[in-house]
Amino acid sequence: MRPVRNVKTIIEYDGTDFFGFQKQPSVRTVQGELESTLEGLFGERVQVIGAGRTDAGVHATGQVISFRVPGPIPTDNICTVLNDRLPCDVRARRCEDVPESFHARRSAKARTYVYTVLNRAEPSAILGRYTWHITEPLDVESIAAAAAQFVGTKDFASFGMAERAGGSTVRHIVGFTIHRQREAVFFKIKANAFLRGMARAIVGTVVEVGQGRRRAAEIAEILAARDRQAGGVTAPPQGLCLTKVEY
Amino acid sequence: MRPVRNVKTIIEYDGTDFFGFQKQPSVRTVQGELESTLEGLFGERVQVIGAGRTDAGVHATGQVISFRVPGPIPTDNICTVLNDRLPCDVRARRCEDVPESFHARRSAKARTYVYTVLNRAEPSAILGRYTWHITEPLDVESIAAAAAQFVGTKDFASFGMAERAGGSTVRHIVGFTIHRQREAVFFKIKANAFLRGMARAIVGTVVEVGQGRRRAAEIAEILAARDRQAGGVTAPPQGLCLTKVEY
Repeated sequence: MRPVRNVKTIIEYDGTDFFGFQKQPSVRTVQGELESTLEGLFGERVQVIGAGRTDAGVHATGQVISFRVPGPIPTDNICTVLNDRLPCDVRARRCEDVPESFHARRSAKARTYVYTVLNRAEPSAILGRYTWHITEPLDVESIAAAAAQFVGTKDFASFGMAERAGGSTVRHIVGFTIHRQREAVFFKIKANAFLRGMARAIVGTVVEVGQGRRRAAEIAEILAARDRQAGGVTAPPQGLCLTKVEY
Repeated sequence: MRPVRNVKTIIEYDGTDFFGFQKQPSVRTVQGELESTLEGLFGERVQVIGAGRTDAGVHATGQVISFRVPGPIPTDNICTVLNDRLPCDVRARRCEDVPESFHARRSAKARTYVYTVLNRAEPSAILGRYTWHITEPLDVESIAAAAAQFVGTKDFASFGMAERAGGSTVRHIVGFTIHRQREAVFFKIKANAFLRGMARAIVGTVVEVGQGRRRAAEIAEILAARDRQAGGVTAPPQGLCLTKVEY
């Protein structure tokens, strides 16, 4: 048997033209592009494991993938060679050899997502690709009050689904902070893991608080309902970005 | 004859998927998209005049256009209606009625372009759309010394072409400043007008100074040569953005 190395790579992508991270037949996905590029590079099928299964249109600056490859390309060169071959909306930022046991998804201890709202009257052709445009002024203080109620180990069934039917919907949110910088409002959420659609459902709900459509005090009731119908709208995908995965 | 209004509109576009501003047969251009959208809106052909003819791949956050339209849509509503119909990579930011004599190109007193370099080892899938990625550290002080030599009324034949053969190549650069913010280097150039390719030729040349390939003192000689061959490389289009037009 040939020696096999396990490689960890931090990748960035512009999610606009992808049907999400996870490979699916006959549509363009990040995993699909990575696997076909790696296959071209190593001359054999390579399975890519991603830390987070980002939805269609969601971006990443700090997604982490792992994959096993045979020689002979040194790990230091894999980034360069990958970037020469990948389409320009996916880039490998950093590669390193990791122990055999490392698994980009199962080994991850925490994921951080940042959601960005462009909060001004004028739309933007450029920022519109990476933000949710909301014209009415958001009340950042009441959003922060609502956000604080998400922190902790809770059942988030009102804000998303488990990957597998019947899987646990309990997750631990480590931090959820809001800050405004001129016309942008940033929502930064760090959790051990996220349910499917959870980051966008939480942002959509606290934005309703910031618009005065819900009270911050309702969050506890919504969580207790354990029903997605109880939660707020799902924020659109283009404002969301997976920024960091910790191990 | 029906009353005709002259409308000034500030527009923003992501230049990535356009063959530049100016209309050309059988390719996608900003002017082409605007004119066909306005024609759909007003039921007749509308000619759009742009302040700057940005090249393929160049962006704008502050391009100004003017066009004459018949009633009945109030000017205040034109932005909203335009944005409902325009593709998402072009947005109307602000509309106002202007005097009959206003001409977006001929009335303009100054244009400001900002060029952005991403100056770090790692490439970026997202910022790569809007920046020139240069991995070797740039010496911003020597770039600023070179930039200072461009300011004033000079013949810029070594840095671009007049729109019409035989046209003057003299332009007045009002300001040219460089600043670094973390991994980004911004080049801000304001001039009464620009020759074709001038902003990118100037940036390409001063970047060569920042890389140590030319001395700042060479700029005077290059200007004196009045020959594009004497100047430096043309910086790639995606780093350039037309940010402001003054009247």
